[in-house]
Amino acid sequence: MKAAVLHAPYDVRFEERPEPKIEQPTDAILRLSATCVCGSDLWPYRGANVINSPTTMGHEYCGVVEEVGTGVTSVKPGQFVIGGFAFSDNTCPNCLSGFQSGCLHGGFFNTAQAPMLRIPQADGTLVPTSGKPSRGMIPSMLTLSDVMGTGWFAAEAANVKPGNTVVVVGDGAVGLLGALAAKIMRAERIIAMSRHETRQELARNFGATDIVTERGEEGVARIKELTGGLGADCVLECVGTPESMKQALGSARRGGYVSYVGVPHGVSLDAQQLFFTHVHLHGGPAPVRRFLPKLINLVEEGEIDPGKVFDLTLPLDQVAEGYRAMDERRAIKTLLQP
Amino acid sequence: MKAAVLHAPYDVRFEERPEPKIEQPTDAILRLSATCVCGSDLWPYRGANVINSPTTMGHEYCGVVEEVGTGVTSVKPGQFVIGGFAFSDNTCPNCLSGFQSGCLHGGFFNTAQAPMLRIPQADGTLVPTSGKPSRGMIPSMLTLSDVMGTGWFAAEAANVKPGNTVVVVGDGAVGLLGALAAKIMRAERIIAMSRHETRQELARNFGATDIVTERGEEGVARIKELTGGLGADCVLECVGTPESMKQALGSARRGGYVSYVGVPHGVSLDAQQLFFTHVHLHGGPAPVRRFLPKLINLVEEGEIDPGKVFDLTLPLDQVAEGYRAMDERRAIKTLLQP
Repeated sequence: MKAAVLHAPYDVRFEERPEPKIEQPTDAILRLSATCVCGSDLWPYRGANVINSPTTMGHEYCGVVEEVGTGVTSVKPGQFVIGGFAFSDNTCPNCLSGFQSGCLHGGFFNTAQAPMLRIPQADGTLVPTSGKPSRGMIPSMLTLSDVMGTGWFAAEAANVKPGNTVVVVGDGAVGLLGALAAKIMRAERIIAMSRHETRQELARNFGATDIVTERGEEGVARIKELTGGLGADCVLECVGTPESMKQALGSARRGGYVSYVGVPHGVSLDAQQLFFTHVHLHGGPAPVRRFLPKLINLVEEGEIDPGKVFDLTLPLDQVAEGYRAMDERRAIKTLLQP
Repeated sequence: MKAAVLHAPYDVRFEERPEPKIEQPTDAILRLSATCVCGSDLWPYRGANVINSPTTMGHEYCGVVEEVGTGVTSVKPGQFVIGGFAFSDNTCPNCLSGFQSGCLHGGFFNTAQAPMLRIPQADGTLVPTSGKPSRGMIPSMLTLSDVMGTGWFAAEAANVKPGNTVVVVGDGAVGLLGALAAKIMRAERIIAMSRHETRQELARNFGATDIVTERGEEGVARIKELTGGLGADCVLECVGTPESMKQALGSARRGGYVSYVGVPHGVSLDAQQLFFTHVHLHGGPAPVRRFLPKLINLVEEGEIDPGKVFDLTLPLDQVAEGYRAMDERRAIKTLLQP
């Protein structure tokens, strides 16, 4: 089979890789219905991480079970399934406390931009849908593997409750879906920070009530203005840069909640500054597995349509263009069809 | 009257200061039954903060209302009252959300090591006891003004729930009372980190089930050993140094809760490291006012006896020796009698 491989910054190739096989009795093999490029893939793509040797890419997927190992009991060939970007046994203490992305026997996928994918710990990782989803539903199902689950985690970790005022920092797919999650959690006011027109539109479509185009200190000042000088109850930091974190912390009210779900790059926090804000800080790689049953249900019931974040669909062999479009912000998120 | 004044590092004097008077209709004047030296007073005492001019000291107090301004309605002369180390109107949005130590119209006391004290925003700051407490109860009432309230906040902010395993970093009065708070909140296991025998004893007396004497990486390794390799559900950071914060973060389980209640000095947090621990972080100057009614009740009912942290009692005019004893760790906490 052919799969995406990053050779150097800005150099993604579609090249021959061995087809995955069952290696452990707890494995499953999926034939992917769709995969995609993640905002976090842009860090190595742009050279933020060192690439020592050609590396396969991708951690978002949904598809049909092709084969299962002898120890797999919860899914079977032919079923349509989704799993998170991390695999997990879903039975260890970390999983049981809801942090499956920190599973003691888990890890992260990095071979999902491919037609076939091996799932370790299949029983703890995969969740089947009620039936085979319609073609139109597949993009939304795909988002549950990462961006929708991560947006949901951002909202949960920021303690969004009915009636709250919520600020979303970051207008990437995760930020946009964080706004959608906040809407489902019945936030009263959802302020999206974005200066990009099509993203603003999608944010509004997902439930944002206000758009703030200012950034940095001006952005914080505008949030304060919109919240009676107090700041927001909940702030979702969905970028991972020093600037976005500063903006997020500055936008929270005293004792408010700030979540952060994008891998922080070069972000250092001054504990004394944090201390005098009384802010609650919580984040990390989203434990998507925790939310899958609920989110699958919301998609199946037509309550959410997160697949709208895909504004570019390409055949998998054009994966390099998928990266380019996102890097140049021509696309919010690229769906790839194997 | 005479009061404590810090002139330079290690130079506390007891000297003449004007007696406080009602300045605003919302003020009250207290005649203090007791005051004390706080661990946080040692930061300026040791020269960690710049002292530009002689500065009065002290923010812990309880005593009898001597006089009230015309706008004060909730307390009256003759009542025994306690207030937190911060004053607050208890009606602004920050107060209403439980962060009275971030009151929009509040501030911090720094003249309480004196016989008399002016309380701004008396209605929002002071809470009367049921009756005049016995002489023996006064030390415990005094702790509610800061250390017991701060220990309680540490436990609340670390989300201590029945059955939890709790680690307390710091064996000062706040840490010791954090252990007591965790006990009242029905933590199952309370691990106090201390290498000081009398403090270990007091920690056990307050409810600690285990003592860890190791520090730094060895301390973290020992905590992991005691918690099946996972780390603790809740960690109370009650010091405020880079070392103590590192120890606290390292001692928490994946997705655990770390509170920090000592003003951080020189503590910087790497957000990416924090990200991959999934830790919940919350702290700040304790909103003691939030807990006063409950804590007064616990003292009056004999449920807690936090006054045990005072292992040195001096007349107020010996305040300089009170500082010295704490600085040299001869005393856990010094009570001063005006």
